[in-house]
Amino acid sequence: MIYPTILCGGSGTRLWPLSRQSYPKQFVPLLGDETLFQAAARRLTGPGFAAPLVLTNSDFRFIVTEQLQAAGVEPGAILIEPQGRNTAPAVLAAALTVAARDPAGVVLVAPSDHVIPDAEAFRAAVARGLAAVEAGDIVTFGITPDHPETGYGYLELAAAPEASGAPVKLARFVEKPARTAAEEMLAAGNFLWNAGIFLFRAADMIAAFETHAPELSAAVRAAVDEAVPDLGFLRLAPGPWAKAPDISVDYAVMERAENLSVVPFSAHWSDLGGWGAVLSEGARDARGVGTFGAATAIDCTDSLLRSESEGVELVGIGLENIVAVAMNDAVLVADARRTQDVKKAVDALKAKGAKQATQFPKDHRPWGWFETLALGPRFQVKRIVVAPGAALSLQSHHHRSEHWIVVQGTAEVTIDDKIQLVTENQSVYIPLGAVHRMKNPGKLPMVLIEVQTGAYLGEDDIIRYEDVYSRGQGAKG
Amino acid sequence: MIYPTILCGGSGTRLWPLSRQSYPKQFVPLLGDETLFQAAARRLTGPGFAAPLVLTNSDFRFIVTEQLQAAGVEPGAILIEPQGRNTAPAVLAAALTVAARDPAGVVLVAPSDHVIPDAEAFRAAVARGLAAVEAGDIVTFGITPDHPETGYGYLELAAAPEASGAPVKLARFVEKPARTAAEEMLAAGNFLWNAGIFLFRAADMIAAFETHAPELSAAVRAAVDEAVPDLGFLRLAPGPWAKAPDISVDYAVMERAENLSVVPFSAHWSDLGGWGAVLSEGARDARGVGTFGAATAIDCTDSLLRSESEGVELVGIGLENIVAVAMNDAVLVADARRTQDVKKAVDALKAKGAKQATQFPKDHRPWGWFETLALGPRFQVKRIVVAPGAALSLQSHHHRSEHWIVVQGTAEVTIDDKIQLVTENQSVYIPLGAVHRMKNPGKLPMVLIEVQTGAYLGEDDIIRYEDVYSRGQGAKG
Repeated sequence: MIYPTILCGGSGTRLWPLSRQSYPKQFVPLLGDETLFQAAARRLTGPGFAAPLVLTNSDFRFIVTEQLQAAGVEPGAILIEPQGRNTAPAVLAAALTVAARDPAGVVLVAPSDHVIPDAEAFRAAVARGLAAVEAGDIVTFGITPDHPETGYGYLELAAAPEASGAPVKLARFVEKPARTAAEEMLAAGNFLWNAGIFLFRAADMIAAFETHAPELSAAVRAAVDEAVPDLGFLRLAPGPWAKAPDISVDYAVMERAENLSVVPFSAHWSDLGGWGAVLSEGARDARGVGTFGAATAIDCTDSLLRSESEGVELVGIGLENIVAVAMNDAVLVADARRTQDVKKAVDALKAKGAKQATQFPKDHRPWGWFETLALGPRFQVKRIVVAPGAALSLQSHHHRSEHWIVVQGTAEVTIDDKIQLVTENQSVYIPLGAVHRMKNPGKLPMVLIEVQTGAYLGEDDIIRYEDVYSRGQGAKG
Repeated sequence: MIYPTILCGGSGTRLWPLSRQSYPKQFVPLLGDETLFQAAARRLTGPGFAAPLVLTNSDFRFIVTEQLQAAGVEPGAILIEPQGRNTAPAVLAAALTVAARDPAGVVLVAPSDHVIPDAEAFRAAVARGLAAVEAGDIVTFGITPDHPETGYGYLELAAAPEASGAPVKLARFVEKPARTAAEEMLAAGNFLWNAGIFLFRAADMIAAFETHAPELSAAVRAAVDEAVPDLGFLRLAPGPWAKAPDISVDYAVMERAENLSVVPFSAHWSDLGGWGAVLSEGARDARGVGTFGAATAIDCTDSLLRSESEGVELVGIGLENIVAVAMNDAVLVADARRTQDVKKAVDALKAKGAKQATQFPKDHRPWGWFETLALGPRFQVKRIVVAPGAALSLQSHHHRSEHWIVVQGTAEVTIDDKIQLVTENQSVYIPLGAVHRMKNPGKLPMVLIEVQTGAYLGEDDIIRYEDVYSRGQGAKG
């Protein structure tokens, strides 16, 4: 049995403003209707695959469950990393978790943010890898390069890959090369791109960590042993986890291990490492222009125009090699060949204290989501959407009062001792200091408009009395 | 006495999305804090100038009064054109209006959307023109060209202008030239750009119209004679006005008249005819980059980055010769040398039915303004700002009920027979069909959040019972 493990705790900024720390690219429908994470989860289902294991962090846990549910994938387990510690601790935690359930289990570790359109071809590659795994090898997957890319690491194979795609022994890992080295490797024929996908027997990986990274091994083992179940998630123990070094599995183990093989993969693959990649991966017209949402291109070539909001009309005129991404709260316009510099944009926004650097306009919570519609002196207007059956915590505020107007569905509203149903087109007032809660008792999403007034309107002005999602005082609501 | 007349009924789209039919560029602070219209009004004040006459259309009349008030300029009269009919009818209407007040009056007609930073130099040029006017000439102002522009008409002078800037007889008008013709005119030295600014005795212009355009003359004279005062505005009579041909003063009169002189004007002038011009007229850094509002330029050259909304962070990376203008509801990204094609963008948006083609996000009304914060199925959220002392009409709706939450100031709210004061952080409910009105009895702007619910939420679902601004049934509210 193969236990697929999806790593989705990362939060890249190279696709800002669509990918932000609070809602990174794997959760965004970048190409088509599905998110990259959903596509990854569905790619790893089928005969021979167990239900997937997901490793994520606490902030993303409800996004993970929501997106898996929407994709029709039942997870085997969702492990919550107390902190992001790179791939080594995550891979070992997955191996230990699988070994505890199935001592002979085989683990397939894959990132959640890659594009692999041909899922059949990918599963066939995994199947080819099993022979090497049964011989005790850790298998990496190597992408057949089609250009001398300097942004990826390479795998040097002991021999040129065969047409069958059978596993080949790995000679060595090659770090991101300079241009000439990349050209030489492309010409040589026995170098493949390192896709960061691994297949191994859980027991073999555990042994490799014990040999090559004993301290990390002990820390992660303790974090898994002391993990605490919480509302369907498995929270790794924060104390021991904090002692695990922040290191990639390549550095910690793979570059030191001997029992390594590579399965060549020649179907299409992309890590969508920047907007330039999104442009080339997506649908384009005859002039090389991709448009998405409310976007209009006039006389443009080789450009990407994306409006990520129904309400924002984006127009490009006479553009060449330009990427423009428009959202409600942020707009990026960049030379398509310079999209690696998007990180600089995020740094610049962080430096000026702009929340757009890290915060997504929609704030996803276990019960649904909200967004700020208007923020003024002493007032804030939010749209709040509560999932069927979900409830916000029982709470009160020191500095603000709230007006709620239900515009869709029915809310069950608690104010101090009173519980009432508030239906479409009705409103209630929550005085400053009142203990209150809202719940959606219905079968469809409930939408309400909240108007807050007060001297301080921060999310951390919250006292929690009861919370079905076990969140603490002042934590996000 | 010189009677300055400002033409501001036009609605250019070349600076879309900031300039739109419902709120065109003359009313926007494009350079600095003042709008172009305010700058024009202040340029035409001083010794020898009467209070300005303003020609505009009905939709802009309250914007005109609001902006004049903010600029500290008291208008002599505000004439409302029932329809836009180009400059000929407007110029004649101004001449007739002035002649009725002062038979010896001199009229200075100027557009409201030009940039002339040196107001002193401009007034000095006007003073130089008076000698020719006293000799019975109609004076046009000619801008000393500094490049072979193909986008303007030219004035051929009978002789090269003198250093004194004294009026010179006009030889002929030259239409927008081809490139080589423009280069020849620049080299010749006796060709100036036609700025569309005119100085004349009212009686002379009236006589010129009677001679060269008798039908237009009769129509406009009737429209002025039958004009109706309305809340401080003077509404030209729509019936006769509709009979006036839609034609420019150049075509109707100037190209046929003999008594024409030109005053050369060599100080800086621009018609801000496109975003490229806004880029070159505005402040720029050493790399030629202009930023405005929440905009960040990373490694850009010769580009303009404008965020027109506090809430929208605009970032440019590696751009060259790009104009990017970001608003709440629309974003333009264009090659700076192609900004003449912005009209195509507006046409494309019109064709797809996008309201952004013509409608500004803030809807200005006689009592203040509003903007839509959110629009969903069966609900709409608006921010409404009511000026001190102002009131909305007494009205009712067939298809929607409304919740009002006051977030700043105090509202005097009428619902059916009841009048109540609603203060900050209070709310009221307006049931479907109830006759209601809101008024700001205070000394500061009153801000409220309106949540509408209902099956139809169009602005035209309105029955008016009383309106201090004399608007009709179903008209904008």
